[in-house]
Amino acid sequence: MARKAYDLSKSYTMLERAEQVVPGGVYGVRSVRFAVYGKYPQFIREGRGSRLIDVDGNEYVDYISAFGSILLGYRHPRVEGAVREQAERGNAFSFPSDRWLELAERLVERVDVADWVVFGKNGSDVTDYALRLVRAYTGRKTILVGAGAYHTFQPWGVPLPVGVPEAWRSHVDDFRFGDVDSLEQVFARHRGDVAGVMVSPFKHDAFHDQEIPSRTYTDALREICDREGALLVLDDIRAGFRCHPTGLSHLAFGYQPDVICYGKAIGNGHPISVLVGTEALREAASRLYFSATHFFSAEPMAAALATITAFDDEKAFAHMSQAGKALCAGLEERANAAGFRVRITGPPTMPFLRFEDDPQFELARKWCGEMALRGVLVHPVHNWFVSAAISDDDLVRSLDVAEECFALTRADRA
Amino acid sequence: MARKAYDLSKSYTMLERAEQVVPGGVYGVRSVRFAVYGKYPQFIREGRGSRLIDVDGNEYVDYISAFGSILLGYRHPRVEGAVREQAERGNAFSFPSDRWLELAERLVERVDVADWVVFGKNGSDVTDYALRLVRAYTGRKTILVGAGAYHTFQPWGVPLPVGVPEAWRSHVDDFRFGDVDSLEQVFARHRGDVAGVMVSPFKHDAFHDQEIPSRTYTDALREICDREGALLVLDDIRAGFRCHPTGLSHLAFGYQPDVICYGKAIGNGHPISVLVGTEALREAASRLYFSATHFFSAEPMAAALATITAFDDEKAFAHMSQAGKALCAGLEERANAAGFRVRITGPPTMPFLRFEDDPQFELARKWCGEMALRGVLVHPVHNWFVSAAISDDDLVRSLDVAEECFALTRADRA
Repeated sequence: MARKAYDLSKSYTMLERAEQVVPGGVYGVRSVRFAVYGKYPQFIREGRGSRLIDVDGNEYVDYISAFGSILLGYRHPRVEGAVREQAERGNAFSFPSDRWLELAERLVERVDVADWVVFGKNGSDVTDYALRLVRAYTGRKTILVGAGAYHTFQPWGVPLPVGVPEAWRSHVDDFRFGDVDSLEQVFARHRGDVAGVMVSPFKHDAFHDQEIPSRTYTDALREICDREGALLVLDDIRAGFRCHPTGLSHLAFGYQPDVICYGKAIGNGHPISVLVGTEALREAASRLYFSATHFFSAEPMAAALATITAFDDEKAFAHMSQAGKALCAGLEERANAAGFRVRITGPPTMPFLRFEDDPQFELARKWCGEMALRGVLVHPVHNWFVSAAISDDDLVRSLDVAEECFALTRADRA
Repeated sequence: MARKAYDLSKSYTMLERAEQVVPGGVYGVRSVRFAVYGKYPQFIREGRGSRLIDVDGNEYVDYISAFGSILLGYRHPRVEGAVREQAERGNAFSFPSDRWLELAERLVERVDVADWVVFGKNGSDVTDYALRLVRAYTGRKTILVGAGAYHTFQPWGVPLPVGVPEAWRSHVDDFRFGDVDSLEQVFARHRGDVAGVMVSPFKHDAFHDQEIPSRTYTDALREICDREGALLVLDDIRAGFRCHPTGLSHLAFGYQPDVICYGKAIGNGHPISVLVGTEALREAASRLYFSATHFFSAEPMAAALATITAFDDEKAFAHMSQAGKALCAGLEERANAAGFRVRITGPPTMPFLRFEDDPQFELARKWCGEMALRGVLVHPVHNWFVSAAISDDDLVRSLDVAEECFALTRADRA
């Protein structure tokens, strides 16, 4: 029997109110306009494990996972317990808490690349720090990034640079991800002035098939950086804790970075970002000014400590991988059965599904919209995040709904 | 009887450990080196109302207040209750929570300037947004700021721009705070290209006496901006909720801004920053890209809602003002009795004390260090923040300790 589509009237009434008091209503990736207007919930009342409940009371199996911030599931008992315990002592103080030191030591012990660590709040705080660091160390200016990659909302790399002077985006050039020739060419254009290369572990740009790098590429990145006297920065903010049993994506793909940025998953829903670096960079790092009101707050530190422990103890990576593989295989099978050819790319923990011959993502938006209306949150143009809370029941439900929605999408096209 | 100086051995043993895993140990304003190395606690175990307890178990009356983030006292019951209640539903979701809309509507209703609002995490997130906004609206590039004022840790205004290319700091010029002639001169230098002026409500730069602006100056700011087609941005991140019974500093000093930035106090220890703007700017605002993982997280929204309610209900401003006045009067009296002339500047809720004839802050460091060692946290080079949790007992204790420490400072000088 066909499922009844959810009623979203409260969400959209609230969105109308939001449009009165916030320009454009909801901004950034959390706007339903980034997915499908009218078919996704815009306001959430509650999260629980793998599930979200919206303000209309509809329940969803969530594969968006707060755009990667949720790793172990919403309100994970050990993480929330640790936060609550810290809350009994406080969050922001005039000086750091003991949790801050504990987390710094834990990360230096855990991450092979890490001889030292600093903490920020947004991912962009630490990618900005990385740029300053490699420039301070090398005395050079140019930064190279993968074309189309997202590393910051700050002026130097914001995708839509409205209101940003051109000069504030200078000294940045790009190359094609995974393409050694392209990398050599851009180095040649800036010979002697490349301070560093910033890359994500795999290509996970919105609106594109994801690309897993070859060892040839990751080896070449290191060799070319060494030859040219440039540093290698890995932006593992989105992919961290989702590509390798240790959580460290560079080990999955063979990167040998000088600096790694983490964020999102490491706090399981609590705001913290992290930058780790090698001994050689310590002196340069000690010369940087890096300060904000909440960089030292204790609750997200407690959350990160508990998240890392639970990630290990609960074998979260193995579970996520298995769930992700089952999801991807099941979706491909059901898509094919409905007469669609789809490409599912990226690691199974962070899949992205694209319909073939769907350059404007119309089929994707139709299918994903119908999925949302029936209780499964996937995204038409952004990669998904499979959390460790996804259960076998969630998978069964997700694939049942998917089958129905592929049929609806086929009917709509016909 | 003279008080025994606190034992800080755990703090400084931990700082030695921190120096192994973090460049420079603790960075930013929370480093004891920014105050007095060896005399301030570096690690805090717990906050409670007006008090901090460090990892050695020493208790302090705290006038640093997490550098302004603590307005009503540590672990304020209503604020923490609201956060705990929200934590039962979750913090970060794939879409915004209902708390987000509730706070947006509350601020638009409360702040006369606000026809709309956006939220960030760091103060710097919203000062950066303000720059983009005034540039997008005017199509111009130049931003004017008060010389020496702190508005951001991002490249355009970071105080120590190590690793920042000059081009990334272009299109910014400055004038002397409170000086209309200086403002006119800098406008003349950039005639036709000034997008906006960003100012703090009063001059609260570290290492300087604070300055309260005259009405002549605040009126002139508006007139000159209007005449020149520039916008006026008030950075109320540090001073907000500490200058006026409504919390809105522009009402205290007569500013008529187009945009206001808030942060710090508004979350009473929880990370949130806010930008409000006028109707005229709504369209430009809707064109900006502004997105980060935790901009929509619900717990700091719940904290801000509860903070504003408690600020009003508990007449926090009146209480802080009264406590601040008593503190300042008592300190001046005891300083004078000990033979010191001091200048205490700024609003009583955010005082800064400087010894006369102390250009290198040596007396300030001596006195403040002794204060810290005896349980009162004030700062030698940064303004203080009097929280609403300061009690009469706290004041008595603070002034007793101050008297003893002025005597110690005098003895040291002799």
